[in-house]
Amino acid sequence: MDGSGGNGVQKVNLAEKLALFSAHFEPKVVGELNGQEVKLVKVLGPFVWHHHENEDELFLVVKGRLTIRLRDADVVLEPGEFAVIPKGVEHKPEAGEEAHVLLLEPKSTLNTGDVVNERTVPVLDRI
Amino acid sequence: MDGSGGNGVQKVNLAEKLALFSAHFEPKVVGELNGQEVKLVKVLGPFVWHHHENEDELFLVVKGRLTIRLRDADVVLEPGEFAVIPKGVEHKPEAGEEAHVLLLEPKSTLNTGDVVNERTVPVLDRI
Repeated sequence: MDGSGGNGVQKVNLAEKLALFSAHFEPKVVGELNGQEVKLVKVLGPFVWHHHENEDELFLVVKGRLTIRLRDADVVLEPGEFAVIPKGVEHKPEAGEEAHVLLLEPKSTLNTGDVVNERTVPVLDRI
Repeated sequence: MDGSGGNGVQKVNLAEKLALFSAHFEPKVVGELNGQEVKLVKVLGPFVWHHHENEDELFLVVKGRLTIRLRDADVVLEPGEFAVIPKGVEHKPEAGEEAHVLLLEPKSTLNTGDVVNERTVPVLDRI
């Protein structure tokens, strides 16, 4: 059998999932393991400065170029590159052209971290 | 600044890390977050049947094709596809030609799970 397996194991194709939505800065949940969630997000323009009090956050770029601004430097990620932003570290993701990013972080993570504003997505869609 | 950022944040380029080793079925640690480790592994041929008592395990294919045999089905993953094998589920990764795979699992995870044999790597290199 090709594709999805038994025991409820399903494969996830990142490109297929990314084709299901177009909104920017609204992460979608595509997987879960060990209390962490795998999310996909489309980034365009600058996000807000924020940090996560208790959660480390992984950004893996699937398409485009993502800049993660830190208070003292920037990290620029291209496809096939990832970075982990440790808890407590202020950061601001942004992209000049649309970038597609895989996120990995605990289920408890709010997209805007310590900031709650119009860009906060309190409950994420699962696709 | 392009590349590595402040606050100890370093970007990781998967292709660069994969160029640093050639052994099969010997995962290398390339990142860490929230008690989980990000690993890279090269797969060729069949591995052993095993399960992880307490750890869910994510397989994301970077290159090649990975078959994860389950007791009642197979999951076949190509680049840009992932699957999560829940704790307790017996599985056997294999690849007819070399495949490159990103793993995500808790730090406590042993590559051969409940089986300890000549393929067990008790302490993983960090690259």
